[in-house]
Amino acid sequence: MEEYMLKTIKLCDKALKNNDIPVGCMILKDNKIISKSYNKKYLLHDSTAHAEILAIRKACKKLKTTHLDECTLYVTLEPCMMCTAAIIQSHIKKVVYCLKSPKYGHLLNEAKKNKIECVQIYNAEYEKTLKDFFIEKR
Amino acid sequence: MEEYMLKTIKLCDKALKNNDIPVGCMILKDNKIISKSYNKKYLLHDSTAHAEILAIRKACKKLKTTHLDECTLYVTLEPCMMCTAAIIQSHIKKVVYCLKSPKYGHLLNEAKKNKIECVQIYNAEYEKTLKDFFIEKR
Repeated sequence: MEEYMLKTIKLCDKALKNNDIPVGCMILKDNKIISKSYNKKYLLHDSTAHAEILAIRKACKKLKTTHLDECTLYVTLEPCMMCTAAIIQSHIKKVVYCLKSPKYGHLLNEAKKNKIECVQIYNAEYEKTLKDFFIEKR
Repeated sequence: MEEYMLKTIKLCDKALKNNDIPVGCMILKDNKIISKSYNKKYLLHDSTAHAEILAIRKACKKLKTTHLDECTLYVTLEPCMMCTAAIIQSHIKKVVYCLKSPKYGHLLNEAKKNKIECVQIYNAEYEKTLKDFFIEKR
């Protein structure tokens, strides 16, 4: 699992280049990566273009289904309310995340009642990247 | 406002043709329609393709911004958690809706703390359309 999280963190470099908040997301099925994306909110001028929404859209299209119940979603930052709801709508049952988001995170509130297994794989380097971004850019 | 709601309800016909839950959405700025869409979840194989998400994406792209704070969103059914969060993310400050959604609706819970003005324009014909859809299709 740690290897996949490192790959998900690597996706953040592309978001950083566009001055978007560095968040990456990958979706796996049967240990194969079927979708990956990163936050493109400002790149695309689209307030819905969070990493998770883009990765879910790609995965649904690839599998031609709206039910991703056999998939695992990797994401670097705990999903916000919009992305948490998109995870629930997609019936994703396992989320691996790197950092909690005490202010905007919503997944950990909703996980239990929606039977979503949440696993944290903490990474200090990503935490530093995110903190530096907010200090420098915001 | 009623005329715009009737136009928003009219968009549901297209969702019905694809066996998608009949929900329509329009976004207006300065009394001009800048974006319209309808639920395309099953048409597009995309669990995020609710009418509101699609309309917000279009409006953001058209105005080249992620801030739709001067816009009003018309929607036939009270938005779910995902779409409510997308409305908050987009800084939309006024929502005109036709029907409440007691089970899946989330907007009315979140409106006050996010300073979103909500106005209901009820339409009996749309209520019948929605009820008939669930009786026939689900």
